[in-house]
Amino acid sequence: MESAVSFEKLVEQFRRMPGIGSKTAMRMAFYVLSLSHEDAIELSETIREASEKIHRCPKCCNLTDEELCPICRHTARKQSLICVVENVEALMAIENTNEYKGVYHVLHGVISPLDDITPDDITVKELLSRVSEDGVEEVIMATGSNVEGELTAMYISKLLKPLGVKVSRLAYGLPVGSDLQYADSVTLMRAIEGRQTIT
Amino acid sequence: MESAVSFEKLVEQFRRMPGIGSKTAMRMAFYVLSLSHEDAIELSETIREASEKIHRCPKCCNLTDEELCPICRHTARKQSLICVVENVEALMAIENTNEYKGVYHVLHGVISPLDDITPDDITVKELLSRVSEDGVEEVIMATGSNVEGELTAMYISKLLKPLGVKVSRLAYGLPVGSDLQYADSVTLMRAIEGRQTIT
Repeated sequence: MESAVSFEKLVEQFRRMPGIGSKTAMRMAFYVLSLSHEDAIELSETIREASEKIHRCPKCCNLTDEELCPICRHTARKQSLICVVENVEALMAIENTNEYKGVYHVLHGVISPLDDITPDDITVKELLSRVSEDGVEEVIMATGSNVEGELTAMYISKLLKPLGVKVSRLAYGLPVGSDLQYADSVTLMRAIEGRQTIT
Repeated sequence: MESAVSFEKLVEQFRRMPGIGSKTAMRMAFYVLSLSHEDAIELSETIREASEKIHRCPKCCNLTDEELCPICRHTARKQSLICVVENVEALMAIENTNEYKGVYHVLHGVISPLDDITPDDITVKELLSRVSEDGVEEVIMATGSNVEGELTAMYISKLLKPLGVKVSRLAYGLPVGSDLQYADSVTLMRAIEGRQTIT
């Protein structure tokens, strides 16, 4: 198929994005061409700006375009409670509950020997120096419940122990609204182990 | 949820694209942030460039970044046979068959009274002046087989008739590889009407 070089280039750029197949990439490229020149420039500038301005918060490694991220700057948030998450998506998921009032630490990955990701590749060092300096009381390990998430949580917990802070882990159990018969046996076992007294 | 302003802006820009929901838009924005600064600039520049360079071919209204589109420039293509399509996607679909050796005319839409799209909003005028000037022998109406596509094909056919060119329409019938029992009755009726002698 012969089409404009700039068009092909655009489709290719979109196709590299996660979750975007070649048909969607093409639709996106046609969308760009359907935009007025001003709107296309705005899209282009937004990408450039995001890449230029957004950096890691020097405190919690969350992404921000200001000096400190909004969560670290927030005076009402409990700075002595740190929730350790794998990435910004996980941070956002917890923020969406509107329940957590502590701060975060974003690891930007998990330890994964198979993928050659060591503790040095994620922000473990930053977390340790933060915990030893600030008056941190509790660290919640909120990494995923898969092998890598567990490994990372265990590894960091061991390093945190000598620092004398309380380290906790998110609860395992049944997802709210789910039926017992559809739960896998490992989840069910963990739910029994972690049972809580109600009266 | 409090996150960086430039990030929110980026997600919003992606979310406007066709077929992109808010979760995919967010994944795309994270992808942009995961790029090196050079790669992000390249993406940004590709969008700007496509918007600046790509324009309609003055002959067939296909999108191109050169003076004439590659199909109109192609010396081996039969300039006297014009296939009229709704949009560039349809043109690409026909090109992908590798069978059609004529040229195209892209309408950039279909007549649709309900959506307030009149013949003046699509490139009907360009087609008419092209047919009356060039030595065109046949025009194939390859608009969709829905109401708007049919309407557009009928409308243009009537305008072309006085110009003395042959006007044809894509064949209706069973999709190749399909079973008779699953065909809808209108398609089946058209397939019977359009039956062809095989010996």
